[in-house]
Amino acid sequence: MQNKEIPYKIYLKESEMPKSWYNLRADMKHKPAPLLHPGTGSAIAADELEQVFCKELTEQELDDATTFVPIPQEILNFYRMYRPSPLVRAYCLEERLGTPAKIYYKFEGSNTSGSHKLNSAVAQAYYAKKQGLRGVTTETGAGQWGTALSMACAYFGLDCQVYMVRSSYEQKAFRREVMRTYGASVTPSPSDTTEVGRKILAAHPNTGGSLGCAISEAVERAVSQPGYRYVLGSVLNQVMLHQSVIGLETKAAMDQYGIVPDIIIGSAGGGSNLGGLIAPFMGEKLRGERDYRIVAVEPASCPSLTRGRFAYDFCDTGRICPMAKMYTLGADFIPAPEHAGGLRYHGMSPILSQLYHDGLFEAVSVKQTQVFEAAEYFARVEGILPAPESAHAIRVALDEALKCRETGEEKTILFGLTGTGYFDLKAYEQFHDGRMTDYVPADEELERSFAGLPKQS
Amino acid sequence: MQNKEIPYKIYLKESEMPKSWYNLRADMKHKPAPLLHPGTGSAIAADELEQVFCKELTEQELDDATTFVPIPQEILNFYRMYRPSPLVRAYCLEERLGTPAKIYYKFEGSNTSGSHKLNSAVAQAYYAKKQGLRGVTTETGAGQWGTALSMACAYFGLDCQVYMVRSSYEQKAFRREVMRTYGASVTPSPSDTTEVGRKILAAHPNTGGSLGCAISEAVERAVSQPGYRYVLGSVLNQVMLHQSVIGLETKAAMDQYGIVPDIIIGSAGGGSNLGGLIAPFMGEKLRGERDYRIVAVEPASCPSLTRGRFAYDFCDTGRICPMAKMYTLGADFIPAPEHAGGLRYHGMSPILSQLYHDGLFEAVSVKQTQVFEAAEYFARVEGILPAPESAHAIRVALDEALKCRETGEEKTILFGLTGTGYFDLKAYEQFHDGRMTDYVPADEELERSFAGLPKQS
Repeated sequence: MQNKEIPYKIYLKESEMPKSWYNLRADMKHKPAPLLHPGTGSAIAADELEQVFCKELTEQELDDATTFVPIPQEILNFYRMYRPSPLVRAYCLEERLGTPAKIYYKFEGSNTSGSHKLNSAVAQAYYAKKQGLRGVTTETGAGQWGTALSMACAYFGLDCQVYMVRSSYEQKAFRREVMRTYGASVTPSPSDTTEVGRKILAAHPNTGGSLGCAISEAVERAVSQPGYRYVLGSVLNQVMLHQSVIGLETKAAMDQYGIVPDIIIGSAGGGSNLGGLIAPFMGEKLRGERDYRIVAVEPASCPSLTRGRFAYDFCDTGRICPMAKMYTLGADFIPAPEHAGGLRYHGMSPILSQLYHDGLFEAVSVKQTQVFEAAEYFARVEGILPAPESAHAIRVALDEALKCRETGEEKTILFGLTGTGYFDLKAYEQFHDGRMTDYVPADEELERSFAGLPKQS
Repeated sequence: MQNKEIPYKIYLKESEMPKSWYNLRADMKHKPAPLLHPGTGSAIAADELEQVFCKELTEQELDDATTFVPIPQEILNFYRMYRPSPLVRAYCLEERLGTPAKIYYKFEGSNTSGSHKLNSAVAQAYYAKKQGLRGVTTETGAGQWGTALSMACAYFGLDCQVYMVRSSYEQKAFRREVMRTYGASVTPSPSDTTEVGRKILAAHPNTGGSLGCAISEAVERAVSQPGYRYVLGSVLNQVMLHQSVIGLETKAAMDQYGIVPDIIIGSAGGGSNLGGLIAPFMGEKLRGERDYRIVAVEPASCPSLTRGRFAYDFCDTGRICPMAKMYTLGADFIPAPEHAGGLRYHGMSPILSQLYHDGLFEAVSVKQTQVFEAAEYFARVEGILPAPESAHAIRVALDEALKCRETGEEKTILFGLTGTGYFDLKAYEQFHDGRMTDYVPADEELERSFAGLPKQS
């Protein structure tokens, strides 16, 4: 197809929006390793998982054969309230950088949760409602996931109980208030409302918490209340499935204009954004149809891909969740309180971990201050104030575009702009005031944490 | 044209976006009264206005003959970064309300400034840059305008000095930080950096400030620095002109689907949103081509249309700006510190005032707690967390839709959703905690304020 004149923003028509999610696992030669029971260490059965997750979500979690999963009409209706998200051609950025590169970004921040998290939240709330549950529990770090889930639960009339990492809870009171607007209850984690929370508090009385702790608390709450299940905003296979809508929309929009990316860049914490963005492109790569250079960007303070181990590990600090084979820093690793709270997770999606292990994409880590430099630059040129998480991808996209300026290559760069930074302004203030620091864990710190990895690995 | 199936969101293509602004004055039989010099009381001349405003903006301010003003290419380029804004069909809201009414809203909040204010900010910054100025000064209430101007100035490389109403400055530290991200300097008003500020502080040492005070300070700063001009985000004719892009896009989108609104509802503070939204519809009404019911919604705490006088008055508390004939509560009126800071202005756009005086639209006032009830309801059903200002229009749209449920009428309701409430969460918190109060000025309070109106009226 010939290149038509490319607009600043490409929006699919409603009729062109994806009607199925794409299950990348179906095209993977090496499937992600199965989840293991935390007590017995043997492969977990569907009926065991269903104690924690909704039934249909469990099926999606375990299904590595079905290529396309139809999106239920109720979810499509919700998607239509805030999707399609725009694929933006960054004309202004290209001009300001003086680069011959062509830069595109898929902007997922135009909804109240402020990020792509809503794509999976609405799916998980829908299946919970369909199963006749009363409510769901979850954890949230920076708050995007908790907000997204609150919105979805308000829409479907479900109770929503959120455990929010304490450091974020204190830094982001406004996030809590958004969740309350949507009727959710929000508890700082670790808390004394769960056994696991009390244990963690006893061992680390002044901890700011972590996603790993909050997950443990939310799971405990879910299994101890009738009519509740636990839901999670990243890492899981089901989340990658739902988030494939990002990549499917992106690819459909690019195909309309004959655009083929040379480099695809995504921030990576648990993998929900990266996995969703790259899904159909990685599919082509797996099927040998086309090659892409794909780059995951993670914080130097929490470098699971670039410095972690590929091993079975617990998904939560309290070790009550199933074990997953993934790149991990160890479930005991408590990341420094950097501002990209959404990326402060010790592990990585098993799907992405397997793909990374198989050499199908690269990973780099970047420091927080470099990320905020990129964030501010981007805000001034492209208008959008990015979330710190999203700005990890911006940093590397800028670097790649500047390389093209040196070499004169007209590469096409695609990155995922996962969300907005309206609730991250304390971090921006610290940056403006020159008070922001960088943290990179020492090798010995990681070694200590790796020592806690379970024996199976 | 027949009704095609109407999507949840209608986006114009870039090629369909307006290329000219529409100057409603050209179609008004009774033109808005001329601005008067604050000292002499005679009609102000262009060269006098140019001391305060940029040259081309002065021309736009005084031009009531040109019907369509071409939008310069540089502004069109900037518009393409965040426009077109979606015209949303509120299917979910209609279903939840059980109303036969068809509800549409034009959503202007999908940009970092969080509101429609950017439409005029980019125009004013562009003309300042074109004139070779060093920078601009302005005031901001809730902060949307200041943020919008900061974004526009960062884009065009202009210095930006913002006087922010002190009560908002204290309530909304994050807003200040967004402006800083875009390189603006922000001073709480009244301040000791201007003569007028020092005077106001001497008379009211504990005042939280008002838009009227902040305007005086910004104007004084503009005229006392070489290479600076003052810019304003509402009230002025030039602002109504730029904001017509809202209505033009709305009408173009509706025309594509053969949609004709029966009722058009807009929040009104200084009039920038209402004037922009209704422009092309009011044009048809003025030309006798079609009739629409148009409703302005203002806060009960600052009811310039519903309880003000149609008279010449000062635009600012310091009485250094030109006088305008408008609906006003008196330049001495200091509105109660309600949360819709963007609506806390004592006067109303001269264009809208004249149209209201001529009976071409209605106005209602609503109380703050009713507004937040509507805001929360809307957030839960439609997903978008509205700004308190925007929720004034939502309140009346809900009321009209509920009337349709009673009568069975299938009316088409259009309202302007001007922005998002991400920086208004302290207000939401107050509302959730049951600590929000309503304020309605007593007749005697207004009479005292009216006594200060200038003699000319």
